[in-house]
Amino acid sequence: MSERDGAEGDRVTLAHGAGGRAMRALVESIFLAGATHPEALAMGDGAALPFGDRWLVLTTDAHVVAPIFFPGGDIGRLAVSGIVNDLAMMGACDVLGLTSSVIVEEGFSLDALRRIHGSMQRACHEAGTHVVTGDTKVMRRGELDGVVLSTSGVGVADRVVRDRGLEPGDALLVTGTVGDHGLAVLAARAALGLEGELVSDVAPLNGLVRAALAAGGAHIHAMKDPTRGGVTSALTEMAERAGVAIVLEEARVPLSDAGRAASELLGIDPLAVANEGKALLGVHPDAVDAVLAALRAHPLGRRAALVGSVHAAQGDERGAVLLDTGFGRRRLLERDGEPLPRIC
Amino acid sequence: MSERDGAEGDRVTLAHGAGGRAMRALVESIFLAGATHPEALAMGDGAALPFGDRWLVLTTDAHVVAPIFFPGGDIGRLAVSGIVNDLAMMGACDVLGLTSSVIVEEGFSLDALRRIHGSMQRACHEAGTHVVTGDTKVMRRGELDGVVLSTSGVGVADRVVRDRGLEPGDALLVTGTVGDHGLAVLAARAALGLEGELVSDVAPLNGLVRAALAAGGAHIHAMKDPTRGGVTSALTEMAERAGVAIVLEEARVPLSDAGRAASELLGIDPLAVANEGKALLGVHPDAVDAVLAALRAHPLGRRAALVGSVHAAQGDERGAVLLDTGFGRRRLLERDGEPLPRIC
Repeated sequence: MSERDGAEGDRVTLAHGAGGRAMRALVESIFLAGATHPEALAMGDGAALPFGDRWLVLTTDAHVVAPIFFPGGDIGRLAVSGIVNDLAMMGACDVLGLTSSVIVEEGFSLDALRRIHGSMQRACHEAGTHVVTGDTKVMRRGELDGVVLSTSGVGVADRVVRDRGLEPGDALLVTGTVGDHGLAVLAARAALGLEGELVSDVAPLNGLVRAALAAGGAHIHAMKDPTRGGVTSALTEMAERAGVAIVLEEARVPLSDAGRAASELLGIDPLAVANEGKALLGVHPDAVDAVLAALRAHPLGRRAALVGSVHAAQGDERGAVLLDTGFGRRRLLERDGEPLPRIC
Repeated sequence: MSERDGAEGDRVTLAHGAGGRAMRALVESIFLAGATHPEALAMGDGAALPFGDRWLVLTTDAHVVAPIFFPGGDIGRLAVSGIVNDLAMMGACDVLGLTSSVIVEEGFSLDALRRIHGSMQRACHEAGTHVVTGDTKVMRRGELDGVVLSTSGVGVADRVVRDRGLEPGDALLVTGTVGDHGLAVLAARAALGLEGELVSDVAPLNGLVRAALAAGGAHIHAMKDPTRGGVTSALTEMAERAGVAIVLEEARVPLSDAGRAASELLGIDPLAVANEGKALLGVHPDAVDAVLAALRAHPLGRRAALVGSVHAAQGDERGAVLLDTGFGRRRLLERDGEPLPRIC
């Protein structure tokens, strides 16, 4: 196949696909070149288009998770929640509809497809939306390993929240325990015997975010969901885009008991693995108490916490995320060049 | 892998994926079960959602074409045109934006990705739209054969045109020569030596359809693009959904010289293979002349023709498509149970 000939440097590598720098460079160099809609706000994970006096927000994601079924969810719940959460992070909590494109390998189980579809429907119900249109393709045995699910969504926002909106002085909130999705998937793969305790947090967050926006309004300066690359990667992107520095206080970051145990057994940093039902919020100090109270009043935000602060930065400090490990000791958090096994 | 265990009858087969009845049954039984948005008009290839006094139209498609590059186009041009055309068929000629989700196999050529992206941009330019957001994933070598491109789009319609809108007495128009895409791909695979003459018709049709709607208004009762399964499959679906019969006059159906030659050499019915730049329109007799003139004045509609008529039907005749082969001889066109090789 001619697409596979040529020099080794001109090929796609796995580092392109796991949320690492190489993948972002690929996306930016090829697929975003010249693609900017003149009227659109191009965002981290979506785009906002002016429509009347509101904004239509569009986002898309391809899901190639392995395993397809994991503790606490499956690829269907992940596909719906991922889209709803990308929309919600931009302030579009009213999700008009989702599209679903399914590619399956010949020989794939119809029962598994039915389970996946059932999960999609339940997640849509939780998010108050629907898959309104879809497409299905089948590839020959060996052309695809299992199933791939690409979803996209359209939401409406009165005000677009940008992941680059952090301002010095902002408080940094997280909506709950971190690392559960990635650790649950890795623990299941390693057969650690934590099943039943450690489950993915995968959930649609638009209801939770709606409550936060109702409480905090324009004081909520920035939001991002720490998916691929985890909290470390998400915070680094937020800090880089806003040209600020972030201090994250390790002792304040909520961890589930099972997540803490799994991270110790596996030797994996819970800040570096994916979450699928959590959000990071940069909030003006005046609104922190109200937003925290609103988050904690919601079933998906009970363990919401203030975990850090945003600071003005110069030169090399722009984009820095410092982990305060206590007693004044701080170390720079760095995104991993060599990504963890693909889990979302 | 547990998704591959179980009885043979419970598995996905290739017949599910090529536009045949088995695939439609799969989609309808699994992925459309209970998925209907209460306010949405669920359509053949998309959905329309009320938004103010207009309609937002959403559609999605997954592209797994082989070969990735073919005479007259590539998977990128196909992915953009397919979405734009699905929107245009529903009356949404103003395309607000597209999303693009790319899944590539490790080792895939970056140059090929750049070519695909360039094609997407050119097709967007022709359609007056943009890819506003995207996602890229990489699968390990052997997990995916090459590249998969899932696109979705959002358009705006003042009036939604439905593929089930045919009425007895309507004239049936086609916007140009049929079969060129499918025949070009099959001829290239068979190395027939027709290269340079026989090229895919893949193109975005929203400009052509806008011109037709301006000329015909509400007299345009139904539209559909004859992609997978070709004209035969598209007409059968239109007739079934409207509960009517269609008579197609074989001698009036435009064929390109190269398409005719390839169909004879390959022994393939040009009515049964995919088009990617053609539309079928059901038009009230009062508007036929105006719509035909508008189509023929557009570069993509020069060979537009009146090819058939729509008739009231009872019982078994509902959904029938009769091919009039001349001298009063008619035979029933049937969609193939065993689909042609996958070409789109």
